[in-house]
Amino acid sequence: MSQLTADLIIEARWILPMTEPRALLENHSLAVKNGRIVDLLPQAAARSRYGQALNVQRPNHLLMPGLIDAHARAGMSLFRGLPEMSQDFERRFATAEFVRDAVLLSIAEMLRAGITCFGDAYIFPNETANAAAEQGIRACVGLPVADAETAWARTPGEYIGKALSVRDEYKGHPAVTTVFAPHASHTLSDDTLAQVRTLADELDCGVTMPLHQTDQEIRSSIARFGNRPIARLDALGLLTPALNAVHMVHIAAGELELAQRSGISVTLCPVSNLRLGHGAAPVARWAGSGNAVSLGSDSAAFHGLQDLWCEARTAALLSRYAPDGPAALAPWDALAMATRDGAAALGLADQVGTLEAGKWADLCCVDLDHPAMQPMRDPAAQLVFCGGRDRVSDVWVSGRDLVSGFRLTRLDWPEVSNRARTRAALLKC
Amino acid sequence: MSQLTADLIIEARWILPMTEPRALLENHSLAVKNGRIVDLLPQAAARSRYGQALNVQRPNHLLMPGLIDAHARAGMSLFRGLPEMSQDFERRFATAEFVRDAVLLSIAEMLRAGITCFGDAYIFPNETANAAAEQGIRACVGLPVADAETAWARTPGEYIGKALSVRDEYKGHPAVTTVFAPHASHTLSDDTLAQVRTLADELDCGVTMPLHQTDQEIRSSIARFGNRPIARLDALGLLTPALNAVHMVHIAAGELELAQRSGISVTLCPVSNLRLGHGAAPVARWAGSGNAVSLGSDSAAFHGLQDLWCEARTAALLSRYAPDGPAALAPWDALAMATRDGAAALGLADQVGTLEAGKWADLCCVDLDHPAMQPMRDPAAQLVFCGGRDRVSDVWVSGRDLVSGFRLTRLDWPEVSNRARTRAALLKC
Repeated sequence: MSQLTADLIIEARWILPMTEPRALLENHSLAVKNGRIVDLLPQAAARSRYGQALNVQRPNHLLMPGLIDAHARAGMSLFRGLPEMSQDFERRFATAEFVRDAVLLSIAEMLRAGITCFGDAYIFPNETANAAAEQGIRACVGLPVADAETAWARTPGEYIGKALSVRDEYKGHPAVTTVFAPHASHTLSDDTLAQVRTLADELDCGVTMPLHQTDQEIRSSIARFGNRPIARLDALGLLTPALNAVHMVHIAAGELELAQRSGISVTLCPVSNLRLGHGAAPVARWAGSGNAVSLGSDSAAFHGLQDLWCEARTAALLSRYAPDGPAALAPWDALAMATRDGAAALGLADQVGTLEAGKWADLCCVDLDHPAMQPMRDPAAQLVFCGGRDRVSDVWVSGRDLVSGFRLTRLDWPEVSNRARTRAALLKC
Repeated sequence: MSQLTADLIIEARWILPMTEPRALLENHSLAVKNGRIVDLLPQAAARSRYGQALNVQRPNHLLMPGLIDAHARAGMSLFRGLPEMSQDFERRFATAEFVRDAVLLSIAEMLRAGITCFGDAYIFPNETANAAAEQGIRACVGLPVADAETAWARTPGEYIGKALSVRDEYKGHPAVTTVFAPHASHTLSDDTLAQVRTLADELDCGVTMPLHQTDQEIRSSIARFGNRPIARLDALGLLTPALNAVHMVHIAAGELELAQRSGISVTLCPVSNLRLGHGAAPVARWAGSGNAVSLGSDSAAFHGLQDLWCEARTAALLSRYAPDGPAALAPWDALAMATRDGAAALGLADQVGTLEAGKWADLCCVDLDHPAMQPMRDPAAQLVFCGGRDRVSDVWVSGRDLVSGFRLTRLDWPEVSNRARTRAALLKC
C-alpha cells in the first residue's frame, strides 16, 4: 500500500464513531491531517499507510467524538455556589473581566470532562469568543439580544449593533462561530424578535433561546402576548431549522408535533431543570421526535456543573421515569445527544459531532482501566451509566491536544484558578 | 500543652464532621490512635499536642467521614453490562469463586469512590465477608434467607444454618458485622419470616430486606398474603428498629407514618430505581421522616455503578421533582444520608458515620483542586452537586490508608482486574 501522509495517528482499543447505532470499531486507528480526520482504518493498515505520522497508542481506551455542551453559559461559572442569584447581582459583578475569568474556568472544567465544543449565550460574548479562540476550544457563541439593560448593552438596537460587530470579527474563524441569542421569549417584544428573525434570515445565522423552561415563562407569555411561547415564535416566523430551542420542559398537546414540523433543534438541560425545580422534559419523546435533540449544562451557576456525562446519565435515567413512562432512552442515543446532535444544534453538523473523514478532529479519549468500567460488555451503555469526567484521558480539538494524560496541556490552570478565586472573593451578597 | 500520643494526624483545609448541620472546621487536624479518632482540633494545637505522630498534610482538601453504601450487593458486580439477567443466569454462574471475584471488583470501585463501608445482601456471604476482611474495608454482610433454592442453600433451614455459621465466624470482628437478609417480603412464607424474626430478636441481630421496590412486589404480596408488604411485616413483628428496609419507592397513605412509628431505617436506591424503571421514592419526605434514611447503589449489575456521589446528587435532584414537589433535600442532608445515616442503617451508628472522638477513623479525603470545585462557597452543596469519585484522593478505614494519592494502596488492582475480566468472559448468554 502506498504511503500517505498524516500528522497524527491515534490507535485505540475501541472507536465509537457515532455515525450510526451499534457502529463500534475494535483495534482501529484514526488518522488526522491539518486538524481534520482523514481516515479510520484497522491499526495494521494505518501503520503501513501512514508510517511517518506521530503515533499515539491508547490500548485500553475508547476514542469518540468530543462532547458538546450545547448550552453552557460559560460566563456565569463564577456564580457557582451562590444559593440564589438576583438580577442586581449580575448588574454589579458581571463585567467584561468577570466574564473572561468565568469563561476560562468553564473551559478548564469542560476540557477535563471531554467537552470540545460549547454553545453559549451570555453578555460580553466577545470575551467568551476571545477566550475560546485563545484556548483552542470550539465555540458557538450566542450574541445576546434583550429589551432590558445590562452591562453589555442598553437597548435592543445596541445589543444588535454589538452582536453584528462580534459576528464580523469572527467571520471565517475555524473554531468560533456566532448565533443570535435572544434573552427569552416572554421578555422580548414582537418588534425585537422580528428584528432578530429578519437579521437571522438575511445573514443565514442561527438563533438560540430558552423556550418553555418554566411554567412562569409560559404564563407570562400568555398574559403579555396571548399565546404560549412556541406558538408565538411560530407566528413571528422564528420556528425554523435555524432555531435551537433550549429546555422545552413543559409541552402541551400538539407542541411536540409543531416542533417536529418546523425542524427546530432542541437542547435539553436535565440537571439544571431538576436542580432549579423546573421539572423534567419528556426525554424519550424528544429523542424520538426526529428533531436534533442535544444536551446542555445551562451553566455552572448556583450549584451546577458542566459535565455532559452527568447530563447524559440523568437524561437516560429520567427517560425511564414519568412523564416518559417506560420509553427508555437507549444509551447510544444519549451519547448521540451529547455529540452528533449537539453539533446539529449548533449548526456544526458538517464540521464535528461524529468521527468521519473530512470533519475536524475533535476527540475525546476515555481510559477504561477503572473498576466501574468492568466488565466491558456494551461500551455505549457503560459510558452512559458508569462513565464520568474522570475517565477522560485525552482531548483533541482540531487535532491539537488540549488534555493529555488527564492534564490540561495548554490552559494554565494555576493561573486560571487563581484568577477565579480572586474574582469570586469580590462577590459579597 | 503536654504531649499526647497519636499514630496519625491529618491536617485538612476543611473538615466536615457530619455531626450537625453547618458544622464545618477550617484548618483543623484529626488525630488517630489505634485506628480510632481521638481528637479534632486546630492545626497549631495538634502539632504541639501530638508532635510525634505521622503528619499528613492536605492543604487543599476536605476531610469527611467515609461514604457508606448501605445496599451494595457487591457479589453481583460481574453481571454489570448485561442487558438483563435471568434467575437462570444466576444459577449457572454465581458460584463462590464468582462472588469472590465480583466482591473484589466492587471493593476496588467503592474504595476509589470514597466508600469505606458497605451493607450487603447476596449469596455466598462468607466470600463477601472474607474479601472485605482481607482488604480492610468495613462491611455489614447480609446473610441470605430464602424459600427458593440457590447455589448457596436449598431450604430455609439450610439458609439459616449457614447464616448462623457465618455469623459465628465473624463474631467480634472489628470491621465485619452480619445481619439477616431475607430475600423479599413477597417471596417468603410467614413461617420463614417468623423464624427470622425470632432469631433476630434472640441474637440481637439486624435484618435488611428490599421493601416496596416495585408495584409488582406489592401486587404479589396482596395476591398471596392479602396485605401490602409493610403491613405484613408489621403483623409479623418485623417492623422494629432492627429492620433496614431497602427501596421504599411506592408508599401508600399512612405507610410513611407506620415506618416512623416503628423506627425502622430506610435505604433509598435512587439510581437503581430509575434505571430499572421502578420509579422514584419520595426522597424529601423520607429525609424529613425522622427515620435513619440512607443511600444504596443496589449493586453494579445491569448498568449500575457503586458511587455514592452519584446517588446523593440524584437524590438531591429528584427531591426537587415530583412526587416530592418543592421540598428540596438540603445538600448537608444528602451527605448525611451517605454517611451518618448509612451507619445507623447498618447498626454502626456508634462506630462510624461521623468524625467524633471514639469512632473508627473511616475517612474520605476530597481534593478540591479541580475546576468544578470553584468557587468554593458552600462545601456541602459543592460536594453534592459538583463532587464525584474522581475527587477522592485518600481513604482510610480504621486509620489504615487504602487509597492514597488517588491510588489503591492495598488492593492489587491488576490482579483483581484480570480475574474480573477472565471470569466475566465465561458468562455467555
